[in-house]
Amino acid sequence: MDADKQAVTVIGLGSMGSALATALLDRGHPTTVWNRSPQKAAPLVEQGARLAATPGEAVAASPLVIACVLDYDALYGVLDQDTSALAGKTLVNLTSGAPEQAHEAAGWAREHGADYLDGAIMTTPPGVGGAEVMFLYSGPQAVFQAHRPTLAALGDPVHLGENTGLASLYDAALLGLMWSTMTGWLHGTALVGADGVAATDFTSVALRWLKTVSVFLTTYAPQVDAGRYPGDDATVDVQIAAIGHLLHAAESRGVDNALPELLKTVMEKTKAAGHGLDSYASVIEVLKARKEQGQ
Amino acid sequence: MDADKQAVTVIGLGSMGSALATALLDRGHPTTVWNRSPQKAAPLVEQGARLAATPGEAVAASPLVIACVLDYDALYGVLDQDTSALAGKTLVNLTSGAPEQAHEAAGWAREHGADYLDGAIMTTPPGVGGAEVMFLYSGPQAVFQAHRPTLAALGDPVHLGENTGLASLYDAALLGLMWSTMTGWLHGTALVGADGVAATDFTSVALRWLKTVSVFLTTYAPQVDAGRYPGDDATVDVQIAAIGHLLHAAESRGVDNALPELLKTVMEKTKAAGHGLDSYASVIEVLKARKEQGQ
Repeated sequence: MDADKQAVTVIGLGSMGSALATALLDRGHPTTVWNRSPQKAAPLVEQGARLAATPGEAVAASPLVIACVLDYDALYGVLDQDTSALAGKTLVNLTSGAPEQAHEAAGWAREHGADYLDGAIMTTPPGVGGAEVMFLYSGPQAVFQAHRPTLAALGDPVHLGENTGLASLYDAALLGLMWSTMTGWLHGTALVGADGVAATDFTSVALRWLKTVSVFLTTYAPQVDAGRYPGDDATVDVQIAAIGHLLHAAESRGVDNALPELLKTVMEKTKAAGHGLDSYASVIEVLKARKEQGQ
Repeated sequence: MDADKQAVTVIGLGSMGSALATALLDRGHPTTVWNRSPQKAAPLVEQGARLAATPGEAVAASPLVIACVLDYDALYGVLDQDTSALAGKTLVNLTSGAPEQAHEAAGWAREHGADYLDGAIMTTPPGVGGAEVMFLYSGPQAVFQAHRPTLAALGDPVHLGENTGLASLYDAALLGLMWSTMTGWLHGTALVGADGVAATDFTSVALRWLKTVSVFLTTYAPQVDAGRYPGDDATVDVQIAAIGHLLHAAESRGVDNALPELLKTVMEKTKAAGHGLDSYASVIEVLKARKEQGQ
């Protein structure tokens, strides 16, 4: 332990909470841990963590308290047992939930005299501690800045804004991007796999292609903000023509086409809304306007 | 023109064909062009291209003939006018189509004594000529190697294998990945946009996240090849729980949820197939086995 490193408490020692505590110990932070089942703490105690006997004792041990439990019911179930030590502390809540739950938790912390940051961990437990891994935070800028050096032990801390709900909102949006990307990749892998191409061979090309797609997103993001989608590079009409090749090739190989069929439907709705000659970014007009479109 | 650079003919001068001819001229290749509407050739002739009067004259002008026209009907419509000069030439066909059409075109070229490569351009016209841009080719390795130095003028030439259908099959699979990724990104952009986040702000985080997702794909590809999907990092069960947050957040903000609802259905089918404790890579078992699953 380094005397100049901030003391931290970690509440919740599932695989993610344990990874957080390990990263803090690795960086020399005096670390107190608590878990409903205390045996989960054993490997951390061997690495130098102190095991608190109660949640109240855990909160009292450090100015910064990081909570990573199953859900918000579990969070209140633990912290409501003894709120006497919360005043003057900072609670960083990395428990997954909705933006509204984050706002509620911030209010709950305020009632008990504690500062509050909401956070989202954009990696799996083995990735915790990596310098490039994003940890997203939302809440007061001053609170974030005060604890940034400590939070950097977990990964790269990214402050999204003072709106407490942003971390969980971004988390949901980014996971949606992940599932879409992974499912599209698996569909492509199944398609080429039908003709004998190994997943690893296809993936080496797919990873290069994702860098090109990233360039497209960089081009399209300002179009979304401007609400104008010049189709200089490729139009929705061109994409509708091209997706026919994908549907045909996958159909004839017995690959499930539910995903590309949905994508084609989205493109056709976008064309029907007048964006046939616009770029693919214009698809957002259909996604964000569901109620007006009467779908 | 450099005397040591191979002469090339480009047939089809849409925005993509014109970009190909420009890239060849920029690298000093003697370049002959032909287009149904000859006025499209004017800017290229100014840059030094020679305009052929007929398709037959265009084919006769160079040992390497690159075709990039609307579709296979247009391809045969042009080349069948005069096949006398094809013997001994190499035809590189960058026209979009199905793998079966590529095989058929290879047979057609063989009948006329020409070598054949099929290809797919993984960029938009403004990207042509970039050293990092992938041009995918399939067909005989020896033919590819012979023309690789010339093809490098257009972008990075990637040979996928001797199976002529692979370029268009990869093209379809990679475009599917692109549409999935772009639509997931737009859904996330619409979600955070409902709470006032600019698309450019979200996208800077999303692009970093896509690099992390790429690491996941690198982990999952060998699982697909092995047919075993250890859920050490995150299980399908965990993803099913997490997508509930996305659906709820998007629903309450009026964002169209068709895409995440489909993704949830796919995950639930994967769980029902016995993969709840496996990684997300196991979703491929549902995608590739549609007929067996009775969907």
